[in-house]
Amino acid sequence: MKSDPIRIFVTGGTFDKEYNERTGALFFHETHVPEMLRLGRCLLHVEIATLMTIDSLEMTENDRRIIAEHCRSTPEDRIVITHGTDTMVETAATLAREVEGKTIVLTGAMIPYKFGSSDGLFNLGSALGFVQTLAPGVYVAMNGRWFPWNRVRKNREKGVFEPV
Amino acid sequence: MKSDPIRIFVTGGTFDKEYNERTGALFFHETHVPEMLRLGRCLLHVEIATLMTIDSLEMTENDRRIIAEHCRSTPEDRIVITHGTDTMVETAATLAREVEGKTIVLTGAMIPYKFGSSDGLFNLGSALGFVQTLAPGVYVAMNGRWFPWNRVRKNREKGVFEPV
Amino acid sequence: MKSDPIRIFVTGGTFDKEYNERTGALFFHETHVPEMLRLGRCLLHVEIATLMTIDSLEMTENDRRIIAEHCRSTPEDRIVITHGTDTMVETAATLAREVEGKTIVLTGAMIPYKFGSSDGLFNLGSALGFVQTLAPGVYVAMNGRWFPWNRVRKNREKGVFEPV
Amino acid sequence: MKSDPIRIFVTGGTFDKEYNERTGALFFHETHVPEMLRLGRCLLHVEIATLMTIDSLEMTENDRRIIAEHCRSTPEDRIVITHGTDTMVETAATLAREVEGKTIVLTGAMIPYKFGSSDGLFNLGSALGFVQTLAPGVYVAMNGRWFPWNRVRKNREKGVFEPV
Repeated sequence: MKSDPIRIFVTGGTFDKEYNERTGALFFHETHVPEMLRLGRCLLHVEIATLMTIDSLEMTENDRRIIAEHCRSTPEDRIVITHGTDTMVETAATLAREVEGKTIVLTGAMIPYKFGSSDGLFNLGSALGFVQTLAPGVYVAMNGRWFPWNRVRKNREKGVFEPV
Repeated sequence: MKSDPIRIFVTGGTFDKEYNERTGALFFHETHVPEMLRLGRCLLHVEIATLMTIDSLEMTENDRRIIAEHCRSTPEDRIVITHGTDTMVETAATLAREVEGKTIVLTGAMIPYKFGSSDGLFNLGSALGFVQTLAPGVYVAMNGRWFPWNRVRKNREKGVFEPV
Repeated sequence: MKSDPIRIFVTGGTFDKEYNERTGALFFHETHVPEMLRLGRCLLHVEIATLMTIDSLEMTENDRRIIAEHCRSTPEDRIVITHGTDTMVETAATLAREVEGKTIVLTGAMIPYKFGSSDGLFNLGSALGFVQTLAPGVYVAMNGRWFPWNRVRKNREKGVFEPV
Repeated sequence: MKSDPIRIFVTGGTFDKEYNERTGALFFHETHVPEMLRLGRCLLHVEIATLMTIDSLEMTENDRRIIAEHCRSTPEDRIVITHGTDTMVETAATLAREVEGKTIVLTGAMIPYKFGSSDGLFNLGSALGFVQTLAPGVYVAMNGRWFPWNRVRKNREKGVFEPV
């Protein structure tokens, strides 16, 4: 059971938002992924890098190219990307065009990890499950499910991901 | 992306333990799996049944036969079993002998879900990821990893699962 | 040890804010004070009423008169008011002018109760301690301390209350 | 509003129990009082000392004399003692006999602080409220209420403190 090394790229999104107690605004401080992996007693060989910490509504095509470039150049073949949910599917499409031969799983959260009652820990667990077992390709993992990048959309009204 | 229905069998273990504030003892009240699936905004087609709520150190061969019988008779081919960690591997061995053609993933927790700082939500997420993607067989999912039933042991000293 | 009945008036503020997972905005749903009192196993004779659920920056003089009117007309002589921190001192000043012969303690939170890591439960505990023991007057209870209404200000830079 | 310095003596009890994930037993590691004061953004002048970390059912008369001796010799006149609930009233009686001219408030928790859903933070907040405002004497602060040491008992059946 030698497990392949896994790369986690952090890009921001609700996952990592925090509450600024002086201003009452939400902001990014630093990623909680290492803390979450400790909580999950995760013993996978995981390397984490923060590429950006932004709202996915503010993500530009240039940001997406940066993510794709990192996916290509990192030595690992199995990659989890934490990402805001609003444009997760767009980024997945860019990666599907620009990265070949790797298993890439995008995940995120509807509630910030720091706010309690977050889906983040569950999603991270399932994304790490999928990334170890799915064939090369680009996938979205949310709501306990996995979707190929071109078979999914976010239903903003319901706040869930659904097949198309 | 029509997802296969998944069966979750609850058998007890640390996962579902609670603290009795009058006696100071740990006890089982009822499973937290439905609450955890809600927290994870899980939209999989999942059916949950509680077979028993016991410490896995107290699990008998008869209990294991009951679990195996339920795995055989339930219509779903993908099954997650929440189980105490101490004898999880023994139960996996029984199931490997007695159940064929189904993907069965056993998981558990080192810290009760109700105690905060639990690995339970992460483990449930990863187990649901593995059960959807692994070939028929019996597996243990802990520490973010998956192991075939005959390639794993619990290292009690370290409190982790490791390959053999 | 017959304890006097205590009135809690909820007016909103960070205390009761929640995260809207569809929009990413903070909003008020309903007060968490009853849940917090259950968590604290509180056995005081407490009556709770929600007067408004607003950000204290949006509180008008008319809102303050409404609060004062409720403080006068409620039969209890001991009153806790949950309030946004930004204008807590202004409301305290209004109440000091308009309500006589009652012990009124204003408290709030820097972090919403629902976000984990909140100071709300601690503040509610201390406010209930102060309201049972302080002489009639209007007070602010924050940071474990109590202040007469005219001897305190919020230091917005530091996010704490300090004596003047 | 110069606030008097407050001494907190930690003696153990449910308050500070933790879950040993290897053995499944409850144990004492170190007190969570400093972390709880940070969470409460407490700005009181507080000095903390851990006198012992034991179950209050195991507390001996000698232990109680040690606590009393520390209450006498510490320079602060306002003292909070965190204590197991089972014999909190017995310790209060010893302190009432052996310490004069100080305000001493004993408090504890029905659920360990680390287990989530704990009453500990609420109780600590209220105890700090009472210790700043009550006249010299020995008191128990639980369930949001305060009791003189000789007017209270623990109702073990209900898990609450009640007046006698």
